[in-house]
Amino acid sequence: MPFEALFVPDELRAAVSDEAWLRAMVAAERALLRVQFGEELPEVELDAEELAREGRRVGNPAEPLVRRLRKVAPNVHHGATSQDVLDTAAMLVARDAVALVDGCLARAAEECARLAEEHRDTVMAARTLLQQAVPTTFGLKAAGWLVGLCEARRALAGVELEAQLGGAAGTLAAFGDRGLELLRAYAAELGLAEPALPWHARRTRIAQLGSALDLAAGACAKIALDVELLAQTEVGELREPGDGGSSTMPHKRNPVGSTLVRACATGVHAAAGVLTGGVHEHERAAGAWHAEWKALSDALALAGGAAARTAETLTGLEVDAERMRANLRAETLSEAARFGGAERPEDYLGAANALIDRALALHRDSK
Amino acid sequence: MPFEALFVPDELRAAVSDEAWLRAMVAAERALLRVQFGEELPEVELDAEELAREGRRVGNPAEPLVRRLRKVAPNVHHGATSQDVLDTAAMLVARDAVALVDGCLARAAEECARLAEEHRDTVMAARTLLQQAVPTTFGLKAAGWLVGLCEARRALAGVELEAQLGGAAGTLAAFGDRGLELLRAYAAELGLAEPALPWHARRTRIAQLGSALDLAAGACAKIALDVELLAQTEVGELREPGDGGSSTMPHKRNPVGSTLVRACATGVHAAAGVLTGGVHEHERAAGAWHAEWKALSDALALAGGAAARTAETLTGLEVDAERMRANLRAETLSEAARFGGAERPEDYLGAANALIDRALALHRDSK
Amino acid sequence: MPFEALFVPDELRAAVSDEAWLRAMVAAERALLRVQFGEELPEVELDAEELAREGRRVGNPAEPLVRRLRKVAPNVHHGATSQDVLDTAAMLVARDAVALVDGCLARAAEECARLAEEHRDTVMAARTLLQQAVPTTFGLKAAGWLVGLCEARRALAGVELEAQLGGAAGTLAAFGDRGLELLRAYAAELGLAEPALPWHARRTRIAQLGSALDLAAGACAKIALDVELLAQTEVGELREPGDGGSSTMPHKRNPVGSTLVRACATGVHAAAGVLTGGVHEHERAAGAWHAEWKALSDALALAGGAAARTAETLTGLEVDAERMRANLRAETLSEAARFGGAERPEDYLGAANALIDRALALHRDSK
Amino acid sequence: MPFEALFVPDELRAAVSDEAWLRAMVAAERALLRVQFGEELPEVELDAEELAREGRRVGNPAEPLVRRLRKVAPNVHHGATSQDVLDTAAMLVARDAVALVDGCLARAAEECARLAEEHRDTVMAARTLLQQAVPTTFGLKAAGWLVGLCEARRALAGVELEAQLGGAAGTLAAFGDRGLELLRAYAAELGLAEPALPWHARRTRIAQLGSALDLAAGACAKIALDVELLAQTEVGELREPGDGGSSTMPHKRNPVGSTLVRACATGVHAAAGVLTGGVHEHERAAGAWHAEWKALSDALALAGGAAARTAETLTGLEVDAERMRANLRAETLSEAARFGGAERPEDYLGAANALIDRALALHRDSK
Repeated sequence: MPFEALFVPDELRAAVSDEAWLRAMVAAERALLRVQFGEELPEVELDAEELAREGRRVGNPAEPLVRRLRKVAPNVHHGATSQDVLDTAAMLVARDAVALVDGCLARAAEECARLAEEHRDTVMAARTLLQQAVPTTFGLKAAGWLVGLCEARRALAGVELEAQLGGAAGTLAAFGDRGLELLRAYAAELGLAEPALPWHARRTRIAQLGSALDLAAGACAKIALDVELLAQTEVGELREPGDGGSSTMPHKRNPVGSTLVRACATGVHAAAGVLTGGVHEHERAAGAWHAEWKALSDALALAGGAAARTAETLTGLEVDAERMRANLRAETLSEAARFGGAERPEDYLGAANALIDRALALHRDSK
Repeated sequence: MPFEALFVPDELRAAVSDEAWLRAMVAAERALLRVQFGEELPEVELDAEELAREGRRVGNPAEPLVRRLRKVAPNVHHGATSQDVLDTAAMLVARDAVALVDGCLARAAEECARLAEEHRDTVMAARTLLQQAVPTTFGLKAAGWLVGLCEARRALAGVELEAQLGGAAGTLAAFGDRGLELLRAYAAELGLAEPALPWHARRTRIAQLGSALDLAAGACAKIALDVELLAQTEVGELREPGDGGSSTMPHKRNPVGSTLVRACATGVHAAAGVLTGGVHEHERAAGAWHAEWKALSDALALAGGAAARTAETLTGLEVDAERMRANLRAETLSEAARFGGAERPEDYLGAANALIDRALALHRDSK
Repeated sequence: MPFEALFVPDELRAAVSDEAWLRAMVAAERALLRVQFGEELPEVELDAEELAREGRRVGNPAEPLVRRLRKVAPNVHHGATSQDVLDTAAMLVARDAVALVDGCLARAAEECARLAEEHRDTVMAARTLLQQAVPTTFGLKAAGWLVGLCEARRALAGVELEAQLGGAAGTLAAFGDRGLELLRAYAAELGLAEPALPWHARRTRIAQLGSALDLAAGACAKIALDVELLAQTEVGELREPGDGGSSTMPHKRNPVGSTLVRACATGVHAAAGVLTGGVHEHERAAGAWHAEWKALSDALALAGGAAARTAETLTGLEVDAERMRANLRAETLSEAARFGGAERPEDYLGAANALIDRALALHRDSK
Repeated sequence: MPFEALFVPDELRAAVSDEAWLRAMVAAERALLRVQFGEELPEVELDAEELAREGRRVGNPAEPLVRRLRKVAPNVHHGATSQDVLDTAAMLVARDAVALVDGCLARAAEECARLAEEHRDTVMAARTLLQQAVPTTFGLKAAGWLVGLCEARRALAGVELEAQLGGAAGTLAAFGDRGLELLRAYAAELGLAEPALPWHARRTRIAQLGSALDLAAGACAKIALDVELLAQTEVGELREPGDGGSSTMPHKRNPVGSTLVRACATGVHAAAGVLTGGVHEHERAAGAWHAEWKALSDALALAGGAAARTAETLTGLEVDAERMRANLRAETLSEAARFGGAERPEDYLGAANALIDRALALHRDSK
């Protein structure tokens, strides 16, 4: 990714790096060796780039890895197949990266909760089809953002990250009688869920992971789009933190964070389309599987990028409550009157505060 | 859709038709009128095509509908907005259609369970990267299909279909003090879930519905692809029911059903991309919302098409167990020997039967 | 599509209807019968729904059609295959529908040209990242829209719509020595291009059609998004024609047309993803081909919907030149000063007029 | 991308690397400085990672770059905007990478031409819906692949790579009277096409580049899928070069190259969806633009990966002509008889050879 540091926080870049994948693959082999033979895998110097290069011949980096590991631990990988190692590694990478993504989502949610609480009385125009409709509050808007983040976090937490172990055909045949026992022990050793069946060609969890990351990035993109629209020169109700970053036009206060959030979310959606769209042949796919590695890394990294920058943007967000009120058009206000209220926006907020309470309760429950 | 009957069962075509949408919209208005004013909505003659045409002026069919309904029930739609009606209608349409889709998935799952049970001892080659790898059983293959369907059904059942009611800005303002009470009663009246907040511009449920339908169609496509591959002339292990349908080449036994399943699944994936990808401005989107109606109908209809045809295909599927065994190459068998087994495939099936039991248990739990 | 009339003009609905597909299939058979045997195909009463239903058995509607036609013209379809008929029909449907789409694009382009010419001196703020940057003119903005439409029209015109004729395997074998001659005559008879080779499983033209329609819809969506943003209550520089369509909020002037344009474009993009993404097995795909019919119809209909509504919206567009000038912030103007101009926006328009001339020239060339 | 070396050739990785982007950005600034002021840009030590990091503040890496360059060349970037630099850099990166991609496509085409020529008489089964249909030749199959590659190369060559120069609003205002002259000179200096208008928010070329790369990768994926299917254990008509790469199952000859080609093509399709789907606000988009950088790099790198591996796979492809003939079923052959031929497949090849000639002619024209 050109200029990756622009979009993705360092810790997420590390979490989906070649090195992280390699560590996860080694962790998978180590766990299997331990539960199967009670042996410890010695430390081995490994180079991800080298493995990738050698992997060109066989179509994956697991085979070159196993060859190296076998030199120091001949029993390694016994009964397993390359996909066992790589799928398990994908789950380990996902677990670590999802934890980081969720941390960012939680921070963003915390900021939304703060804004919802602080701006219960900050009256502003609700806008539908980009036209002022009737009054609402900025607190309720932030509460809506908050619910989106809570729902995404719940979806992400609900994805079962399952260990993969099945051997060449998913029958666990090379483990003799110990197949199911080893599957359970292996999953437990790694702290992953135990699958009902090996899932070499049934990619439910991959698809669900993709969908949940897409949902999370989408919840961030919704916030970012609203911030951009409210930060428009002519609207001026919000301002992003920072100096706005225009070198040539110092008067501009660009919504830099929201811009990058939306770019990240676009990337997540594309990657999620790969993760959800694979149809895998027989007991291992000839292409659809291999396409997942990049898509998964991208989805994780960019969802993290979206979430982290959303949190950062919301933290320093400047809310111009006076401008919000001033922007309310007479026609918008008179709508309140039409429905029996006086022409004060406060008289037309209905259940806004109660709805904010519901959002905050949802947020508390997800902590 | 050209030649829709080719792909989509009649009942699903009906379930997502203009008339179904219109009935659902009327149901939403009726429910609101009932809980809000205790009034019954009289029957009105309505024409969906006419409403769509008039809707061009305002961008949706709800406004023309409401104008008509108000002639017979002046209190109708009080405090609501077009999106309340259309989103609620979308959920009602989805509920009915999802029930049909799930019925088809259940039938397909039932067939998979039968095949898994019947073919515990039907030895065949597992194939990875489209090459024979080691032996497996057709029962285990069917068990894998079954788990995919079970997981998809669970995902589909897990989507909360929430009523929509928020009024122009999602504040429930025009309902005075009764907003929350009406929201609850309205949802209950319709048999839909009550949302935490109105979700005019927070499309979590729409996205989740799209993802779950995509998962379901993908589970069907996986089966279809395997069937197509196993039904190849040179493989000949499976045959679809029917006469295969080639007018010019009577010797062919085309995998017609699987072909249509895969076509349907491709359409679902495209529609799901729309349902999961929307970023909605402010309190109502100027385009992203309107794009959902077609995408949702397509996703429901085609997921149903995929599921129905999968069930039908599996029901009459001819399994050639002898051919399966005969196709097993010596090299494939000798793999068993290499791992200590004798050179009989039966000695190399590991936990296949136990895994089938796990799949069947999962299936029983989802009934 | 629910409420299709809301999105798609009647003539485009007709152009991609089942009946249009059926007529095109018959036209393909008629042409072949004529060039191959010099016979005329008698009129036959046909029902598209019935053919689709029967087609479920064989996976396409061509086989039932051919059975019917053979009753009145035994030589029909001789040497051809179902895909010959359906692919040729797809090209005929596309030709007619593309002509309609292009007509709408041309009208939209004409309106852009008019706006570009009329508003050479209408100063307004250029906005980058949704912030005012420096002055531009509305004429130049419209010129940019115009170039987008011209480029899309050129792309659409550049797609070669090729007849399909190859027989069961694409060898033209059943035509004996006359294969190439018939291919040429058949294409000429239909007014389609002659392909280098039959393209049963090489979908270049389908993909290019999808891309060009996506480009066209995207050019419309760009205009629609700009119109929506400029029509925002707080910006107020543009107003769409019509009454804006809010039944409950008469003060709103919703950008209805632009909203529907963006919804259409979203649908085109999804359909284009199907048309460009197919990988077809061997000499005929088992699913990827069948998925094209709906995607093609959708892409054509919705691209037409986008183009038609763009033309309509631009025709009645109200441009508030005074508001455009009034909205220009002092900071935006002073940018001009910084670069040596006086603080009048007119002094900071650079090559705007010359660029408009270039756009108009491009437009004239495409007429 | 995890294990990038597995998928992407080194030269393409270099061509889309951060360093390549940075060089291209500097080249854009250098060209502008030269044509505008006749000055030469001194060499500056630059670090892409550092620029990306600093770019987080402003949302792009151009601003930090310009700050550095100005220290040694105060006139640099005069009148330009960040997007001028980055869009021009994107075109330069694309030009170099496309040249590499096309080189790989040309090699693959050359191999297809060779196979088409060599296998004019290699009879095999044509397969439709994955069932044997009637005889064809492997030469004609390769000719079909060849035409797909030729069409993709033509599409790729047809994309105009246009320089970008417009200044803050696309008016060229800061260049005074010299705007158009500088635009022309700048494009010429860089060897890029001169655009009709600056295209900051009109992304035709980006979309066309995405579509053409998708088409190219799709042409490769078609070949790969056919190779995989023909290399199946039970079909055995083709074998990929190499040892097939299964460490645990030495008897397997996995279609490793084709597998990676398909994985690459899946990634290109996802990236192309981003490049074709952007709708850009006003004079610069707040997110849609920023999402292009990664998508463009991915599309270029992975299209190159697909093309390179296709060429490599075809080069060493083992064609088992005897197996091809032996696989032909009696029923398939009798089809020939039915159409008047004797029961020899040679009698049923129709225009196969003439079609091969046409494909070869197309290929010669594209050299």
